Amino acid sequence: MEPYRRVALIGLGLIAGSMALAMRRAGMKTEIVGTARTEATRAEAARLGLVDRVVDTAAEAVAGADLVVLAVPVGAMGAIAAEIAPHLAPGATVTDVGSVKAAVVAAVAPELPGGVHFIPGHPLAGTEQSGPGAGFPELFDNRWCILTPLPGTDPAAVSRLRALWQALGASIDEMDPDHHDLVLAVTSHAPHLIAYTMVGVADDLRRVTDSEVVKYSAAGFRDFTRIAASDPTMWRDVFLNNKAATLEILGRFTEELFALQRAIRTGDGEMLHAYFTRTRAIRRGIVEAGQDTDAPDFGRIPVRR
Amino acid sequence: MEPYRRVALIGLGLIAGSMALAMRRAGMKTEIVGTARTEATRAEAARLGLVDRVVDTAAEAVAGADLVVLAVPVGAMGAIAAEIAPHLAPGATVTDVGSVKAAVVAAVAPELPGGVHFIPGHPLAGTEQSGPGAGFPELFDNRWCILTPLPGTDPAAVSRLRALWQALGASIDEMDPDHHDLVLAVTSHAPHLIAYTMVGVADDLRRVTDSEVVKYSAAGFRDFTRIAASDPTMWRDVFLNNKAATLEILGRFTEELFALQRAIRTGDGEMLHAYFTRTRAIRRGIVEAGQDTDAPDFGRIPVRR
Repeated sequence: MEPYRRVALIGLGLIAGSMALAMRRAGMKTEIVGTARTEATRAEAARLGLVDRVVDTAAEAVAGADLVVLAVPVGAMGAIAAEIAPHLAPGATVTDVGSVKAAVVAAVAPELPGGVHFIPGHPLAGTEQSGPGAGFPELFDNRWCILTPLPGTDPAAVSRLRALWQALGASIDEMDPDHHDLVLAVTSHAPHLIAYTMVGVADDLRRVTDSEVVKYSAAGFRDFTRIAASDPTMWRDVFLNNKAATLEILGRFTEELFALQRAIRTGDGEMLHAYFTRTRAIRRGIVEAGQDTDAPDFGRIPVRR
Repeated sequence: MEPYRRVALIGLGLIAGSMALAMRRAGMKTEIVGTARTEATRAEAARLGLVDRVVDTAAEAVAGADLVVLAVPVGAMGAIAAEIAPHLAPGATVTDVGSVKAAVVAAVAPELPGGVHFIPGHPLAGTEQSGPGAGFPELFDNRWCILTPLPGTDPAAVSRLRALWQALGASIDEMDPDHHDLVLAVTSHAPHLIAYTMVGVADDLRRVTDSEVVKYSAAGFRDFTRIAASDPTMWRDVFLNNKAATLEILGRFTEELFALQRAIRTGDGEMLHAYFTRTRAIRRGIVEAGQDTDAPDFGRIPVRR
């Protein structure tokens, strides 16, 4: 598989930065060109030496690139696609790293010229940090990257992109965009909204102070705060662009939550015990699949005051 | 402060086991006697050498002990208190490690004879593992232990118990049982129920398979599965014994969740962005307070397949 000669990263946040670092770790000779919307982000990326060249505009970045990676919030993808379209090299591949796929396909595909391969993608990796300094080369190790190629996409172009992600440490799956959006609504979007909500409730209570919430957070709450500290712009766009699936899962969630609340209110210990026993099995599956550790405290490095 | 000469651990699960190991780590000469309801647990604790002596009954365990620790599910505390009452040494301290305090006070206090110091307690530490083999000596390091002594409790007895928990690595706070139950409803009980619910929903969907949920869990969901893998009996009892506060917080949670769902449905990006920005601040507080790490991936030890 011929590696890419020049990769353009549009957006220089956690994901793009980690891609650049992972490409270097893999020893790729690829030239990496990057750009970002704000001068501050471009300056920080340049200072960190994240990429070979930082340029001011997306149009400049994609010139001569055989791979273009759209690594901006989902809501910004369509405008970027329109901006770069006239400047794309013939035969180039355009991919993205957005957490939503159907809306990105709808926004990006119509903008791109013929002869360009558009292969939507989503690496399932991240942290609550954002910005150029947040990236690290191991981010994609042992994580999944889901590609959602449209019918008729050139298989060779897909293979080439798969090879890149594999070199970055990821395993690759393919599925259609709508199924991706439903799977992610369950595994990511609904959990994030729920975590944001719980943290908001805690912050809002008059009878329990913020400092009590912080002090006693190790009892469960802090595991919600990490995902509720994720980038606000990215997540606003995720929810606005995966409405149907997210609302479907939240509807199911509310239904179940009401059933459990009712069991608490009526004192139905049997129902609660059976429910809590069933949910243990999924955890075992996740640990067995190597997607988490069962070391105490998540395998966290001990924190010392 | 005079250390305890003999400590009786009633129940030999994660918390009691960790207490025994932490007492040894601290170099205490205290004799540790333990018992558990099932023969299998007692045999495993004996095999692991968790305590100096494993005995068959709670009555036997408390004989001659100057500290008795009730480390059983909250719903079992009252019956245990009644069982041990006639066998307690005069002047002994009885404490517990239950996650709920008002209900434990109501169940235990009336059973205990005069001349015994009852000091309810709750170490805010745990993992999703349970049983005698789950304990480890560092469990309480840098964690809080909340004591909820009743008015009129002997201050010397409280100081002596505080000194024990400090030797095990914990910091101590005191508050009244009702406030404890509200604070824990926010920081622990509601988050656990929500996590159980989300994992139950994922398990129940027909259109997304369990294996997809497991494979793609690193996108947020897996952080819910750890707390949803906690001991079912313990958690059933927590919810049944902290009904009012848990249902109050869940009511507030549902209200907020509906407001966010509505913002998604109506496309109110401004509201979502403002909400998600606010919740970041709490996370910073938790990291600054040393209750979590901001290392990538929770500071998890990398998992390799």
